[in-house]
Amino acid sequence: MGEKDHSDRFLAGDGALTYVPLDTIRRVRREVDDAIVRAEILADICRINALYMIMNAGSGHIGSSFSSMDLITWLWTEVLAGANSGAPGCDTYFSSKGHDAPALYALLIALEKLDADSIHRLRRLGGLPGHPDVETPFIAANTGSLGMGIAKAYGMARAQRFAGRRGRIVVMTGDGELQEGQIWESLQPVANEQLGEITVVVDHNKYQSDSTVAAVSDLGAIEDKFRAFGWAVRRVNGHDVRAIGAALADLAAISDQPGVIIADTIKGRGVSFMEGLACGDQTYHFHAGAPSLKDYVAAVRELAARINATLTARGCALLALAEAPLPIRAAPSNPERLVLAYGDELLQMARHRKEIVVLDADLLSDCGIEPFKAELPERFIECGIAEQHMVSAAGGLALKGMLPVVHSFACFLGTRANEQIYNNATERTKIIYTATLAGVVPGGPGHSHQSVRDISAIGSVPGLTAIEPCCEREARLAVRWAVDTNAFSTYLRFVNVPLDLPYAVPASYSLQVGRGVTLRGGTDVALIGYGPVLMTNAWRAADDLAKDGISAAVINVPWLNRIDDEWVARMLASFPAIVTLDNHYVTLGQGIMIAAALARTGVRAEIRSVGLTDIPACGSNAEVLAHHGLDAAGIARAVRSACSRASG
Amino acid sequence: MGEKDHSDRFLAGDGALTYVPLDTIRRVRREVDDAIVRAEILADICRINALYMIMNAGSGHIGSSFSSMDLITWLWTEVLAGANSGAPGCDTYFSSKGHDAPALYALLIALEKLDADSIHRLRRLGGLPGHPDVETPFIAANTGSLGMGIAKAYGMARAQRFAGRRGRIVVMTGDGELQEGQIWESLQPVANEQLGEITVVVDHNKYQSDSTVAAVSDLGAIEDKFRAFGWAVRRVNGHDVRAIGAALADLAAISDQPGVIIADTIKGRGVSFMEGLACGDQTYHFHAGAPSLKDYVAAVRELAARINATLTARGCALLALAEAPLPIRAAPSNPERLVLAYGDELLQMARHRKEIVVLDADLLSDCGIEPFKAELPERFIECGIAEQHMVSAAGGLALKGMLPVVHSFACFLGTRANEQIYNNATERTKIIYTATLAGVVPGGPGHSHQSVRDISAIGSVPGLTAIEPCCEREARLAVRWAVDTNAFSTYLRFVNVPLDLPYAVPASYSLQVGRGVTLRGGTDVALIGYGPVLMTNAWRAADDLAKDGISAAVINVPWLNRIDDEWVARMLASFPAIVTLDNHYVTLGQGIMIAAALARTGVRAEIRSVGLTDIPACGSNAEVLAHHGLDAAGIARAVRSACSRASG
Repeated sequence: MGEKDHSDRFLAGDGALTYVPLDTIRRVRREVDDAIVRAEILADICRINALYMIMNAGSGHIGSSFSSMDLITWLWTEVLAGANSGAPGCDTYFSSKGHDAPALYALLIALEKLDADSIHRLRRLGGLPGHPDVETPFIAANTGSLGMGIAKAYGMARAQRFAGRRGRIVVMTGDGELQEGQIWESLQPVANEQLGEITVVVDHNKYQSDSTVAAVSDLGAIEDKFRAFGWAVRRVNGHDVRAIGAALADLAAISDQPGVIIADTIKGRGVSFMEGLACGDQTYHFHAGAPSLKDYVAAVRELAARINATLTARGCALLALAEAPLPIRAAPSNPERLVLAYGDELLQMARHRKEIVVLDADLLSDCGIEPFKAELPERFIECGIAEQHMVSAAGGLALKGMLPVVHSFACFLGTRANEQIYNNATERTKIIYTATLAGVVPGGPGHSHQSVRDISAIGSVPGLTAIEPCCEREARLAVRWAVDTNAFSTYLRFVNVPLDLPYAVPASYSLQVGRGVTLRGGTDVALIGYGPVLMTNAWRAADDLAKDGISAAVINVPWLNRIDDEWVARMLASFPAIVTLDNHYVTLGQGIMIAAALARTGVRAEIRSVGLTDIPACGSNAEVLAHHGLDAAGIARAVRSACSRASG
Repeated sequence: MGEKDHSDRFLAGDGALTYVPLDTIRRVRREVDDAIVRAEILADICRINALYMIMNAGSGHIGSSFSSMDLITWLWTEVLAGANSGAPGCDTYFSSKGHDAPALYALLIALEKLDADSIHRLRRLGGLPGHPDVETPFIAANTGSLGMGIAKAYGMARAQRFAGRRGRIVVMTGDGELQEGQIWESLQPVANEQLGEITVVVDHNKYQSDSTVAAVSDLGAIEDKFRAFGWAVRRVNGHDVRAIGAALADLAAISDQPGVIIADTIKGRGVSFMEGLACGDQTYHFHAGAPSLKDYVAAVRELAARINATLTARGCALLALAEAPLPIRAAPSNPERLVLAYGDELLQMARHRKEIVVLDADLLSDCGIEPFKAELPERFIECGIAEQHMVSAAGGLALKGMLPVVHSFACFLGTRANEQIYNNATERTKIIYTATLAGVVPGGPGHSHQSVRDISAIGSVPGLTAIEPCCEREARLAVRWAVDTNAFSTYLRFVNVPLDLPYAVPASYSLQVGRGVTLRGGTDVALIGYGPVLMTNAWRAADDLAKDGISAAVINVPWLNRIDDEWVARMLASFPAIVTLDNHYVTLGQGIMIAAALARTGVRAEIRSVGLTDIPACGSNAEVLAHHGLDAAGIARAVRSACSRASG
């Protein structure tokens, strides 16, 4: 990661990554005296560095970072006063969508507000989190779960006014984000209180996660909407920094009315083949993952060439790039992909069960339902980023005889639509809620996306049975049970991380409510939990423990809120030590239900609960699992503690 | 409840209640041939009967029932075809606000779609629930938690279209209800899908729970808003049935665009002194409770006089009224009111702690904060029915140094804003969430308002400590602990039912995290739980059990998601039987945490968990507690079962 001078070339040819080091940025900012040109060059430099960070991390949102880059560059260099410094009355900026964090980090590093070395630590433990967190300097709010930003700005503005101050508050939102009801819930109160210090910038890049905003859930008359809610509206080309500046100045002059800038931008702006316009109505390919090395190299080449052309024309020296090694990531060799297996099984059943209808909230590919949409588009309903609407719509479908299968990430489905799920439950209809990206890994996106409290959040909904499968086969059994066997509603919880599994459920295995299956026999301690992350790490812990002569059984219980007391007692009665595992907070996860079952049945053992006890850390999967004691080593530590006490 | 002929008088003078019996309604409907006049008379008859039902139940929403009465009378008698009959392609009607259930019930009884005897069973076990439930004939959806109706209609319309049908779907909403973001989340998808079969009627009566909509959170340009979201808009006088009919016909002719009727109505319409216009900007007094007997008598007199004048003018016989006894309700003699004590203590602290700011979601009086608003209006923020906005606004206030104290009903606060509470928690700021109306009683409003899963819903939010006090003194200690002692956030859970308490916490009692206090000593069994409903019924159960020679201790542990294992083990180790009590689902309530603590500490006892296992029943408080085994008799039964097993 040394910052060698590479001014003679701007690309590493030997599998290394490149970025623009701080001394080069300082020089460019010093040498280019025209503010407009300086902002344009700085934005492109930050694009190179954001791309570097995303390549280094292995994931991150390119499209959204690039579309907002020109806007935030102008804001931070020319408009906001002492933004986010914490000084009384200072201006405030934050992104409500939060996906564009790499852009902001790159800019804050360029402006020397973040440590230069942090450029190498995106999505790493102790580094820069995947979505913004106030523990990072100059980050004003935690975002990443969409639609909360305007309400937060309202609270900030009210707090400032209590102190007699009016620092400007600028909030960036996505355009897909406008599908969230909370946005509209907040707009009217801001207008009613005449909070003119609030400016919202809509990064209107026309694309959301799955495809175009228009194809997912068209926004309609966006300017009219804001006006009807009492806001002053301006519309500009979001890549024309002069126009952006004028609109911002314009709105700043209105003190008694909040303002919104609809900034027409291009997703992936700055690299021709990453620009949204290039892909028509199709899926946008640079939304959330790292690009291929080939695409990366071509992108940096294009950005650097443009910067250098401008520098050359102004008589400035060419860009000097620094080099960093391309990180090596071990990929699983033959991983199971539970979500794809689930989607395949659902599709198979839907072919002959005409009442099955699939609902999605703009997370098609992450929920395994692309094949369903392709084959049965007439029974596929895309709801956009509108979880509350989606869940209540499912309620309406179920009341009229359909079997709705509702999809989103676990972090959003059971929490943003929590009350709607309960309301549906009181109608005693049958609905399947499929929640993916469950648990503490992937660890890169950070706590907004790490779902570690959904068992708790939905576990008490009456009649709702929650299941997390541990392998593809159990995933297929689970969805089949939900469709064919369960008379009421089911919550299917899935880990998305592809994993090589060291175990398999027995060929004769079938699902029985509240019961599980022994994956690995043992006599000294029982490791009991659910899902592929826990079972894999428990298995590896058992391997380690065996070397110390500790015989550990690994027991899989996929039922997250239904425990068969007698079965648990029978399975566990002989173990002197029991370790419950939760890919979730321990407070109200599966482990506490198992412990309570042991109390009710009078089984006595030394019990340890492994799971989360604090806010999930952001980092690589290995870092995060180790941090929370959920890797093999952490589980083995808990086992040794329990066993030494049990035999002591 | 005999339906004697009282045609000679229209009011009971001797403390009885009166209603219009079915034979009279039949006669009037038969004799009045003009559809407009017939609808107007029928609406007033239903007002008398809705008022009777509310008086009989002791609670119910008069204002909202009366404002929507003319609209639904015309809809059900002249517009909708076979509505809610379940026949293929039939029309559908439901109220999204749900508060106006008494109006709809009175109408359905008048139209002989509901059993005539059900008029005497509002808010009673097995009768007509406080808010709509699909178990009641001709009720199409469960509502009462606001903002879900348009999304449900979307789902219903899509389901109909899958079956090739287009029955009309009419949804009534409140105007305050438009503050809910979910409304706006749903509008665009309905327009995008061109669901012209959906018609929304906004009962724009200008008042919400606390005061006028304009004073709480002004709606702004309501017609422009719907138009900007792609809807066809009509505006009519909601008491002019001819105009209502014309607007409905108008919208029915538009097949490819959903329509909304903004119906300007008067809250409490039909009884001069109950009409919203009469109270200016002040609190509306007939929102949710039963009126005084004097007001009731005057209201019936006015309604009956108007009906009789019309009947007389048309040469029809006068109204015949039936009589029913005035129910006798035992009031507590010296009840504790925890919410008022809480509000008083908060105000005392706020006088010298200038960072305290109070947020409310239109439930001022039910949250004990009327005195705060009166004394410190500059630190009171009324958010309207916008829980997500309120909670994220609190996040913004906290980020800028304030101490926000957020208020709503427990059924809404932790569930509608569940993800927003978590997002705030990840910022590690300090916020107090005060959730009232917790638990299964009052039982009259029904499951939309009975909060019996909030411990589960918020119990795993990191750093959030949940407490439910059992008496006024503990309520004061709890809010003081949250403000003065706790470094992080607190969820304060309060029962609103005023109760005579048979116990008191000791004078020396102070709050210690995870620990509680013995309210009543005993040796055979420990009853352990929290809050005034559980502790009072446990105490009464202990009284009963003492007669059988069973010595029952009653232990109060106010900590809902923090259990001190060692303390629990010390307190409970000597008991052969332990009964945990939850005013909440047993699945993930306090009881399971206590049972798990016993397992972890190796305490062996016969354990029973008392709490909810199904959807909460609607009924009188006594009926509901008995139904769920949470009354003294139910608790005593659980104790006897545990004790016989423990000694067996």
